[in-house]
Amino acid sequence: MSPKVTTELLKKLRQVMKNPKYVEEPVQAYIVPSGDAHQSEYIAPCDCRRAFVSGFDGSAGTAIVTEQHAAMWTDGRYFLQAAHQMDNNWTLMKMGLKDTPTQEDWLVSVLPEGSKVGVDPFIIPADQWKRMSKALRSSGHDLVPVKENLIDTIWTDCPQRPCKPLITLDLSYTGVSWRDKIIALRSKMAERKVLWFVVTALDEVAWLFNLRGSDVEYNPVFFAYAVIGMNTIRLFIDGDRMMDPAVREHLQLDSTVEPEFKIQVMPYGSILAELQAVGAGLSPKEKVWLSDKASYALTEAIPKVYRYLTPYTPICIAKAVKNPSETEGMRRAHIKDAVALCELFNWLEKEVVPKGTVTEIIAADKAEEFRSQQKDFVELSFATISSTGPNGAIIHYKPVPETNRTLSVNEIYLLDSGAQYKDGTTDVTRTMHFGTPSAYEKECFTYVLKGHIAVSAAIFPNGTKGHLLDSFARSALWDCGLDYLHGTGHGVGSFLNVHEGPCGISYKTFADEPLEAGMIVSDEPGYYEDGSFGIRIENVVLVIPAETKYNFKNRGSLTFEPLTLVPIQTKMIDVNLLTQKECNWVNNYHQKCREVIGAELERQGRHEALRWLIRETEPLIRVL
Amino acid sequence: MSPKVTTELLKKLRQVMKNPKYVEEPVQAYIVPSGDAHQSEYIAPCDCRRAFVSGFDGSAGTAIVTEQHAAMWTDGRYFLQAAHQMDNNWTLMKMGLKDTPTQEDWLVSVLPEGSKVGVDPFIIPADQWKRMSKALRSSGHDLVPVKENLIDTIWTDCPQRPCKPLITLDLSYTGVSWRDKIIALRSKMAERKVLWFVVTALDEVAWLFNLRGSDVEYNPVFFAYAVIGMNTIRLFIDGDRMMDPAVREHLQLDSTVEPEFKIQVMPYGSILAELQAVGAGLSPKEKVWLSDKASYALTEAIPKVYRYLTPYTPICIAKAVKNPSETEGMRRAHIKDAVALCELFNWLEKEVVPKGTVTEIIAADKAEEFRSQQKDFVELSFATISSTGPNGAIIHYKPVPETNRTLSVNEIYLLDSGAQYKDGTTDVTRTMHFGTPSAYEKECFTYVLKGHIAVSAAIFPNGTKGHLLDSFARSALWDCGLDYLHGTGHGVGSFLNVHEGPCGISYKTFADEPLEAGMIVSDEPGYYEDGSFGIRIENVVLVIPAETKYNFKNRGSLTFEPLTLVPIQTKMIDVNLLTQKECNWVNNYHQKCREVIGAELERQGRHEALRWLIRETEPLIRVL
Repeated sequence: MSPKVTTELLKKLRQVMKNPKYVEEPVQAYIVPSGDAHQSEYIAPCDCRRAFVSGFDGSAGTAIVTEQHAAMWTDGRYFLQAAHQMDNNWTLMKMGLKDTPTQEDWLVSVLPEGSKVGVDPFIIPADQWKRMSKALRSSGHDLVPVKENLIDTIWTDCPQRPCKPLITLDLSYTGVSWRDKIIALRSKMAERKVLWFVVTALDEVAWLFNLRGSDVEYNPVFFAYAVIGMNTIRLFIDGDRMMDPAVREHLQLDSTVEPEFKIQVMPYGSILAELQAVGAGLSPKEKVWLSDKASYALTEAIPKVYRYLTPYTPICIAKAVKNPSETEGMRRAHIKDAVALCELFNWLEKEVVPKGTVTEIIAADKAEEFRSQQKDFVELSFATISSTGPNGAIIHYKPVPETNRTLSVNEIYLLDSGAQYKDGTTDVTRTMHFGTPSAYEKECFTYVLKGHIAVSAAIFPNGTKGHLLDSFARSALWDCGLDYLHGTGHGVGSFLNVHEGPCGISYKTFADEPLEAGMIVSDEPGYYEDGSFGIRIENVVLVIPAETKYNFKNRGSLTFEPLTLVPIQTKMIDVNLLTQKECNWVNNYHQKCREVIGAELERQGRHEALRWLIRETEPLIRVL
Repeated sequence: MSPKVTTELLKKLRQVMKNPKYVEEPVQAYIVPSGDAHQSEYIAPCDCRRAFVSGFDGSAGTAIVTEQHAAMWTDGRYFLQAAHQMDNNWTLMKMGLKDTPTQEDWLVSVLPEGSKVGVDPFIIPADQWKRMSKALRSSGHDLVPVKENLIDTIWTDCPQRPCKPLITLDLSYTGVSWRDKIIALRSKMAERKVLWFVVTALDEVAWLFNLRGSDVEYNPVFFAYAVIGMNTIRLFIDGDRMMDPAVREHLQLDSTVEPEFKIQVMPYGSILAELQAVGAGLSPKEKVWLSDKASYALTEAIPKVYRYLTPYTPICIAKAVKNPSETEGMRRAHIKDAVALCELFNWLEKEVVPKGTVTEIIAADKAEEFRSQQKDFVELSFATISSTGPNGAIIHYKPVPETNRTLSVNEIYLLDSGAQYKDGTTDVTRTMHFGTPSAYEKECFTYVLKGHIAVSAAIFPNGTKGHLLDSFARSALWDCGLDYLHGTGHGVGSFLNVHEGPCGISYKTFADEPLEAGMIVSDEPGYYEDGSFGIRIENVVLVIPAETKYNFKNRGSLTFEPLTLVPIQTKMIDVNLLTQKECNWVNNYHQKCREVIGAELERQGRHEALRWLIRETEPLIRVL
């Protein structure tokens, strides 16, 4: 792909940065964050402002444009992609590398004295505003809210905000009714002595009301806010979606209900005014609970003395611990997903090896086709990463016609894909070779596998935070001087966002919540050689209680159970680099794949894929 | 030991909390932190206010007294000790346990509305003040500075502040002259565009001027502050110590020197006034650099706009990376220390086994006696933890007559001890059994050893923070449901504080600086059974470059080299629980002990200890 030409765009942006029609005073720098007004990771096309202005469309990145410079901060997953997608107007700031300045430090180094730095207050989270504002102020600059989004003013063909129909989820999927979720939320509010709770994250609104949508690709959410009082429920949502009889019944909009469960439906755009009204009506000691990642605009609507901000909301924490209905749904979704992947890999082996006609895009489409044959399939859970050879080293690669490579018997193929089913969300990565891998490729794969097993088989005390497990995934790579520049795992939603807080496995976080039985995370170490290949092995795993010989301080222990049940290509494993324990882990895992997925393939009459599964799950034998 | 009776003391404290002679307005709560005005961990007797008021004299703890309650926060090392030392007036708040409230939350839960919480502004670090003040304010209370220390007003027999003679260290010990350290500091100041740097930590003053003192037991420091300008050096220090000709010559006080290296000596107590004068004389954009752990009083002396606060000072970071002279000194110190311990353990085996007359105190004294025979011995580096049987489970135990147990052939003995030599600081823990350990004791010891080896032999990329290695030390224990409630390692000074920042190995920190070659930390996992025994295996280790097969992104790798060379009791090891790699590590380590310490024992003519060393370093043989 060729980089986006941004010279004209930047010129226009620099003009509006000084145009009194849009800014009270000229701003010398303008920040374009990744997110939308809900701080979503995946965003609707109308919110892809950073991609529009720079060309870089990875899921994480912040652009800052000054009169002289344009700079893009992104993390190790996207260094290559961003470098490919942006033209020479842009400087890439590689986060996580020692010499990369922070946005604040960089701004201070390039701005003339007493500068104003503008940002859309609806897009920037309150905690980021605070940090940035403080740093700038201490160097004599000012962070200022620019009400009109300056990118929108130059984005002439900006798409409409989506407003798609909703799906209602019944108890068999959710395990808990929205009424009971409201009751639990209010009890948390009472504990913390807050009168109001503002739901700003889209997946939290969806989870709370047991509704799903499709306003954002891959994430089954819809544009909405909610404000929950001790006796009131206000849902801010647009369009005629509330006309749907199924939705009306689900939310009991037309029933006689106790007043505290009566949902008031209000226009999406009225949230700021309503929140300002709430803020104006508070008495001393009355508090409003918001995420500290809520937008600066909404946070400012509540006077400071009335705000109760936490990094994780009670909904975020409750949502992370899956109940038995959700866990069973996730299991079912992963079985169906594994069936689709067995079909795909069997098909690939038949097509790639003799014919060589399968491209990355064809493989990705085929994966989607097989998934879509499964019951309750809704959509993909993220853009399929179907990458072969050097494309595999672009960590969040998405094949497009310009980069599309043909799978071959000479290159490693990495497929990171997943789907939304009505009963659960999947996310799985397998790395395979259709010919004969080199000794070096096998060596690297085996180190990654050792890291994957080290996390998956780890036993750790209740109360342990996921970030403490991150180094287990790297130890085998580190021993040989290797590493990977991304975290090891993220929380996974239940028919919700494929990335969700408040837990994960990453050296980059510290404020993650402790892992609890019922939480679901990914385990996905990797190794990437720029220009050559990429390796990643990813399972989604469920946190479960572990049986241990002893029980220090009666704390109890936890471990993981893989929900993903897709064979790990044994051809890629150098079995002599595995310990006996690791070898047993692989064999037990494959035994379980054979039993569980084998039975489902049988049931679905997919006999060829079943034969593939049986072949791919032959036990490893370690020669001592 | 029986707890201190504090009823009368608390009554008096509650009176002065309302006495207008000391407080502008009555305070409803008074905080008594651990530290002194320099936020030292080890403090002089006159600064042991928290111990005086509560009886609990561990190295970490914060007391808060309200009109109704008295509560003490401390960490897992001290749960048992604090419970033993405090009477029923006190509630123990076990930090790190899930249900323990923070100090702020507790205060909010017990105080009447609109309360004032007092604290000595010289004792509380600015960062703690800020956090506490914010939390209290958001709940309608106020944190207020109480100029006169309220404990001092009721402490009638408070000892004098010490003012002992200084030791000058020449280049052969320090490797870098104080002038060159000032030059390096000024260059860091220029980089950050600050005009002044305030040295508040005692070990930073000592390190900067290549001076040592003995005002605080175990830490070779002296009460002083320094304020470094781009052209001025001010040293705030009391007493006639500056009359010593050696010190005058070392600091070139009577020589003709360039004005920017002329040291102005000022009274210790004048720091606040001088700093206020500096603050008053600043122009816009001029900055003063302080640690964010400097006291609130000193921090407030500089108006907020002029402050440049960082968690770690450039001195702290420079001090942590030992230069070749310091590293060689540390090696020498550890060789001498190992000689003393070989003598001790040989002596213990002769005395304990047949006679049973050695108590914990006698053993500790004997350890000190052997150490004091070594060249350049100055003093111990911390209170010797000499503990047998159940006392070993009190993590920072110090034997006193009331608790003194006799070593026997039936109990595990744990000795955590170290010394200050003019060329380096040591800190070593060995756990041994003089009879026949039980299978369970050996099992636990072996898990701890596996953790010790996992850290010591870890290879990790340059730029890795120490906290990412903490879980390696726990993995073997976690597998069996065991754990320990303290960090795994701390930085160690070079003839300076035995605990120093900015690096360490602990799950509790996140803001530690990355490990670098030349840094020195301890590696000390443990396992403790309340009422039964304690196990800890501690070496001091040097961060060194590691040779690896590959070199990802040219980052280079690091590993550790043990400086401590004292045998690990093989009798306590269940060799069948070790991997071959671990077994080799032990054998290689013992081989090195034999070579290096053996040669020194030989040189010192300590033949009996040499025979003990040879016997204790026989290779382990693993039966497959």
